[in-house]
Amino acid sequence: MTFLIIFGGSSFEHEISIVSAITLKDKIKKHNLKFVFVDKNRDFYLIEKENMKSKFFSTGEYKNSIKLEITKGGFKYKKGLFKKEEAIDFDVAINLIHGRDGEDGKLPGMLEFFNIKAITPNIESCAISYNKVLTKAYAKLRGVEVIEYEIINKPKTKFDFPIIIKPARLGSSIGVSVVKNQDEFNYAFDVAREFDDLIIVEPFIEGVEEYNLAGCLADDWIFSKVEKVEKKEFLDFEKKYMDFSRKEINLNEVDKDLEERLKENFKKIYENEFENALIRCDFFLKDDIIYLNEINPIPGSLANYLFDDFEVVLEKLAKNLKKEKEIVIDYQYINKIQMAKGK
Amino acid sequence: MTFLIIFGGSSFEHEISIVSAITLKDKIKKHNLKFVFVDKNRDFYLIEKENMKSKFFSTGEYKNSIKLEITKGGFKYKKGLFKKEEAIDFDVAINLIHGRDGEDGKLPGMLEFFNIKAITPNIESCAISYNKVLTKAYAKLRGVEVIEYEIINKPKTKFDFPIIIKPARLGSSIGVSVVKNQDEFNYAFDVAREFDDLIIVEPFIEGVEEYNLAGCLADDWIFSKVEKVEKKEFLDFEKKYMDFSRKEINLNEVDKDLEERLKENFKKIYENEFENALIRCDFFLKDDIIYLNEINPIPGSLANYLFDDFEVVLEKLAKNLKKEKEIVIDYQYINKIQMAKGK
Repeated sequence: MTFLIIFGGSSFEHEISIVSAITLKDKIKKHNLKFVFVDKNRDFYLIEKENMKSKFFSTGEYKNSIKLEITKGGFKYKKGLFKKEEAIDFDVAINLIHGRDGEDGKLPGMLEFFNIKAITPNIESCAISYNKVLTKAYAKLRGVEVIEYEIINKPKTKFDFPIIIKPARLGSSIGVSVVKNQDEFNYAFDVAREFDDLIIVEPFIEGVEEYNLAGCLADDWIFSKVEKVEKKEFLDFEKKYMDFSRKEINLNEVDKDLEERLKENFKKIYENEFENALIRCDFFLKDDIIYLNEINPIPGSLANYLFDDFEVVLEKLAKNLKKEKEIVIDYQYINKIQMAKGK
Repeated sequence: MTFLIIFGGSSFEHEISIVSAITLKDKIKKHNLKFVFVDKNRDFYLIEKENMKSKFFSTGEYKNSIKLEITKGGFKYKKGLFKKEEAIDFDVAINLIHGRDGEDGKLPGMLEFFNIKAITPNIESCAISYNKVLTKAYAKLRGVEVIEYEIINKPKTKFDFPIIIKPARLGSSIGVSVVKNQDEFNYAFDVAREFDDLIIVEPFIEGVEEYNLAGCLADDWIFSKVEKVEKKEFLDFEKKYMDFSRKEINLNEVDKDLEERLKENFKKIYENEFENALIRCDFFLKDDIIYLNEINPIPGSLANYLFDDFEVVLEKLAKNLKKEKEIVIDYQYINKIQMAKGK
């Protein structure tokens, strides 16, 4: 199959997306790959595989690549003197834009509007996972526990320190701080406010264990291994980013019973909502209760490192993509009105 | 100002949107209007004002109009032999696509992606109002009461008859039925399932009063008059549609105190979520408690009939549109990695 990886975007996670796409280039060998870069101005470029290096983007060299337009069924460009329109040939697109544009529903909506087959969360599941307040409300609806929280308009909360403060609509820990006293709270509030107007706080729970599980529904359920995340207190954006390749992950020590319970919770979140997406759910475990921390509808490099055979997962998902419901428009109501009017 | 009204769409409410746009053509006189039709295949057409008649669309005549493409800042077409690209000139777009494409977040996302100024709900507020389950969860978060409900997978419910059954993701009462016994329930369930996989039931409450209130935040709050909706039991899609021009509405009998309470509830729903949209909230009143029934983020003809001076409302909203947050992308993380690698 030929996958078209769409990455970049007007997003705080623009650079993460570039690294994410470069990582996938090395991880996918059986399938053909093409790359579409969305630059910070939201222009589309076709990037040759050999140019998939971070410097190519940071230096602006990418601007010499073929410029694309999104259109029905895919992307096109104008060729030669006579500007003949040529389409990019591929089987399935992969939405790999992290944060805004990719995970807020913009690109998913465009892909659906233009009838482009893609591995991507849809608009509604983006809205649910992009806004942490909605994530919590949704998880409760599905019978999954979440950490309690408070929406704040100033650095003041009902919770005792330490607390964790988060902009409601960002991933990759951007703008997130753990705060131990009021001074830190004041500062962290201003930081969070730079990223979103909607800010939440949660109690920072000591001794919580974190488990990540990725997966999708492609005819049957496909689950990754469970990753037990070992952290020193809290990984901020930069640490997480520099550590993006995740060389050392802990995949061997998870209790079978816990694994089953994590999968049950994953299914509750995913079912009838995240179809067509390969997502990662990040769970907390405390006093034997599983809490959903967040839903990553487009995890970094699609969490390929968690799967035994990532390429098979991609292929299965690609072959089981659900189509949008067909709507018949036959103008029967307008015709009735016309008749009623005697026209 | 020149408004560009975008209507049609691949939606069960495609025809409603056409009627909605035609109605607005007659209601807006001070401002210039241009019209972009999204046909059932999601092709864009520029429709001349004199062609804004329902028959022009139902007969397919619209296909002779200029075909447009969406692009940065607006819409463009190819002119003449040399296919020179020309842009459509306008100040502010109005998203008037009811149902899918317009109210599910697709067009709103595209408008934001392409940096097109528009009166429209955004993606997140679309997701909230498009899915009735999310609407209810959201209203509760905002401290607004809603009618209790149950998600069902078969025609079976904990509620006593009569009940009301609804596909979760459609407006304009499409697929909605009031059901008085199990036979009707079985049939109505199948009808609802044609429109969505997610079905809810609510108790059908006799003697409930319905009040509609439209408005927006444009620097200051702007509210419409309150409409007390007089219904014979229940208006189904066809009745509502045939009655679309709403000649006889009841705007004079609403108690001042009730009006204030409706406005307070409207503000709770709208604030920090529905910016840039002119919405209509439909409330129920029963035993002196106000319930949110639904949020119409793009009401029919923008509920112009409820406002004293609709054109002033449009203009104020257009002049106070909030821009998307700017994101600076400066490649500092990639540059750091490059340095760390010694490249």
